[in-house]
Amino acid sequence: MPGAALVTAPSIPTVPVTPAVLDRLRAIVGDKGLILDEHDKRPFVTDWRGELTGQAAAVVRPASTAEVSAVVKLCHDNGIAIVPQGGNTGLMGGATPWPVHRGILLSLGRMNHVLHVDSVGYTMTVEAGCILQTLQDTAARHDRLFPLSLGAQGSCMIGGNLSTNAGGVQVLRYGNARNLVLGLEVVLANGDVWDGLRALKKDNTGYDLKHLFMGAEGTLGIITKAVLKLWPTPKDVCAAWLAIRDPSAAIELLSEAHAASDDNVSSCELMSRACIDMVLRHIPGAQDPLKAETDWYLLLEWSSARPRQDGGAGMSDRMEQFLADQLDAGRVLDAVIAQTETQSRNMWRIRESVAEASRAEGPGLSYDVSVAISRIPEFIDKGLKSALDILPTIRPYPLGHIGDGNVHFSFMGPKGMDRATLGQYSPAITRAVNDLITSMGGSISAEHGIGIEKLDELQHYRARTELDIMRTIKRALDPDNIMNPGKVLRLG
Amino acid sequence: MPGAALVTAPSIPTVPVTPAVLDRLRAIVGDKGLILDEHDKRPFVTDWRGELTGQAAAVVRPASTAEVSAVVKLCHDNGIAIVPQGGNTGLMGGATPWPVHRGILLSLGRMNHVLHVDSVGYTMTVEAGCILQTLQDTAARHDRLFPLSLGAQGSCMIGGNLSTNAGGVQVLRYGNARNLVLGLEVVLANGDVWDGLRALKKDNTGYDLKHLFMGAEGTLGIITKAVLKLWPTPKDVCAAWLAIRDPSAAIELLSEAHAASDDNVSSCELMSRACIDMVLRHIPGAQDPLKAETDWYLLLEWSSARPRQDGGAGMSDRMEQFLADQLDAGRVLDAVIAQTETQSRNMWRIRESVAEASRAEGPGLSYDVSVAISRIPEFIDKGLKSALDILPTIRPYPLGHIGDGNVHFSFMGPKGMDRATLGQYSPAITRAVNDLITSMGGSISAEHGIGIEKLDELQHYRARTELDIMRTIKRALDPDNIMNPGKVLRLG
Repeated sequence: MPGAALVTAPSIPTVPVTPAVLDRLRAIVGDKGLILDEHDKRPFVTDWRGELTGQAAAVVRPASTAEVSAVVKLCHDNGIAIVPQGGNTGLMGGATPWPVHRGILLSLGRMNHVLHVDSVGYTMTVEAGCILQTLQDTAARHDRLFPLSLGAQGSCMIGGNLSTNAGGVQVLRYGNARNLVLGLEVVLANGDVWDGLRALKKDNTGYDLKHLFMGAEGTLGIITKAVLKLWPTPKDVCAAWLAIRDPSAAIELLSEAHAASDDNVSSCELMSRACIDMVLRHIPGAQDPLKAETDWYLLLEWSSARPRQDGGAGMSDRMEQFLADQLDAGRVLDAVIAQTETQSRNMWRIRESVAEASRAEGPGLSYDVSVAISRIPEFIDKGLKSALDILPTIRPYPLGHIGDGNVHFSFMGPKGMDRATLGQYSPAITRAVNDLITSMGGSISAEHGIGIEKLDELQHYRARTELDIMRTIKRALDPDNIMNPGKVLRLG
Repeated sequence: MPGAALVTAPSIPTVPVTPAVLDRLRAIVGDKGLILDEHDKRPFVTDWRGELTGQAAAVVRPASTAEVSAVVKLCHDNGIAIVPQGGNTGLMGGATPWPVHRGILLSLGRMNHVLHVDSVGYTMTVEAGCILQTLQDTAARHDRLFPLSLGAQGSCMIGGNLSTNAGGVQVLRYGNARNLVLGLEVVLANGDVWDGLRALKKDNTGYDLKHLFMGAEGTLGIITKAVLKLWPTPKDVCAAWLAIRDPSAAIELLSEAHAASDDNVSSCELMSRACIDMVLRHIPGAQDPLKAETDWYLLLEWSSARPRQDGGAGMSDRMEQFLADQLDAGRVLDAVIAQTETQSRNMWRIRESVAEASRAEGPGLSYDVSVAISRIPEFIDKGLKSALDILPTIRPYPLGHIGDGNVHFSFMGPKGMDRATLGQYSPAITRAVNDLITSMGGSISAEHGIGIEKLDELQHYRARTELDIMRTIKRALDPDNIMNPGKVLRLG
């Protein structure tokens, strides 16, 4: 992962967990809630990619908000640092302790209950340790949709999703994780519980605290419960695979798709030919939906909560008309609409297998950046030039959630180049990509957050004034720096 | 307005504006930007209802962010308090200085430029002093919708809308003001400028600062610019007027309307018969769309960005089918779909004239509260009983943005009762309504904010932990308490 090598450990509290504190932790969470064995701790202190490993005196697994509160209060009173963790699926090391960490890792995994589903009011109240897929399934059983959808959904937990403001493939229509939340319960750095667990769509009573805790990666408090918004279940879904002229065509086409679909565009994923070829090479059974003479493709999905009416025009009819118009306009070169569930699943499989295929292909570099949607083509164009200037044989396979302005700007190393050699080019390419995206008013981390990996990059690229405000807030809410210390921000 | 009489002035900075400071202010904003004459200051220091009047040594009208920054820095260095103001249309006194205020009032009215419209990217970058209606019109000229829509739109300014997280009649579909924003520029309490003016849909790089400044009513900084989201212009709009069984029927019906309309419900306004009768009494030309034997009505509007196709089913066909189903289900007793623009305008005129009609009717009480949508019927039922227990001859006329859980729980005084006598009952009724809404997990201020009017109510009803977090943030970002002091929070 680019940048990791540049990161030096920040100064964090190093108060050790004494046997007396351990006894008090055991008294709060019981033997079942305490992991001390090095082997058993390993999966918690190692990030899922296996690239970062830290330490923790104990993995503490409270089963209720009261237990979380008691654990945090104990740590607070003793100056002990806490690394909160959900499903441990983050890509930036936000949930992985630093090697110099001497405090505890607090896992929310036992707080995994759905507390209430209000299908008439379109809300669901849940504990932070619920697996994302469980929440999707629970909503579906009530004929509702919980739209957060991402690769790790089988193991990531909602508390982590909210703490990192997760993105995924449905942001275009439903927004990031923070947009799916009405209320939160948070355990603060001193152990107090903030009860903001309100199921209110409107509430103008002072500062909006929930948005401060979401995306803070556990550095300001620990999210323990949430009231989530639900939507109607899509009943008429139409996916299409488009060969397009270029990225500009994708932007223009998407701009018109909003109206043509009745504002029902649910996904718009841009893929390069290199991306698709890589999946076809490595993923058994994946089939190319369309052979065309172009470098650029779109997976476009429209979905409606209204079932297709007998004799009425459904999503696929509208899509067909839209694609015909776009062919005439020269933006689309060829297109196929999924006629069956199997065809649609195959299209999605290609998109979702890119990460797996890239791991099989070999060492690479990837940048999760965003920019104003209308500037994506310019970014891709200039970004490719910059990277190829540094390493002409690098193999780009850009893709992205184009409707969100989010490009996963990705490269495979040159054929035959090993990880270490590629690593020597990585700092220069990282700097070039980040310089470019910053000069274009974009973000160096669109959806994956900061964690450990991008600590120094944020420090470098963010204006001093903005970092100062963040530090002021961090110091005010966590004066002893015990909440996930050394993540997101350097305080010193 | 209930509660106002209960509020005692909080302790705020009282450093006066010396002639030397005045000279420096003049050097920053010029003669054109400085109002010192008492008569000319009056409209700025008086709230639009004419119920609150404060003081200011000077009304300062900077024309640029650099000028705002210089003015704030000057005040900061001298400990002088600042009341920021947009269109001065708030209902809670948030933009009105306290009578003991000795500092300046900073009006954003001269910063009224639309800086950029990106119609392909669906964004618009604007200065804080732009009138809301100007922004709606600008978007419309680009075939785009800026959906914020409320009674004061002809004079309120976007900076004030964002600082108060304004609501209005399209929240159900598009969200509150905070949901319409991608980026902000804010002048901080020390005069520094935070440049968060990013047109990014995704940006996970540290704490979300923009949501902290929105809804803070100018107590943490002054919003000077914003990047706003745009939507496709509705091309197929259908309004219907429904006589319904009761508020429960409204909730059930709305729950089904999301899917039936393709998630295209744009408004769902509940009105009581008393509400409609009051409008018919006082507003010349208003016509009752439907005479029915029921106490409850809904104005339901669906809108789609997709023009009605020749021969295809448009919004009104779907609405017709939906209403037929709801008649069968017994939720709707009678209904009429607007067939012409004039009919639709008449329906909306009734809804929008309620405030004007109530002023004509005489003294009254109104509570802007919210609760989980599915609990609205219970709230209305219990709330009416509580108020009638205290004053049996009071005349309720509840209405609300029911899709947002937001009820404007309103009462006219008993016939013939003067304002002063009604005022004697007001504290007891206010307390009963607020106690009830709080016990139901609701909000005592759904969309109008806190300002001066609800300072004591927030203090009374919010949990100590939550008030403590807010105070901690306020003290951290504005240690000298110069930004709109004595609003939202009591610090002492």
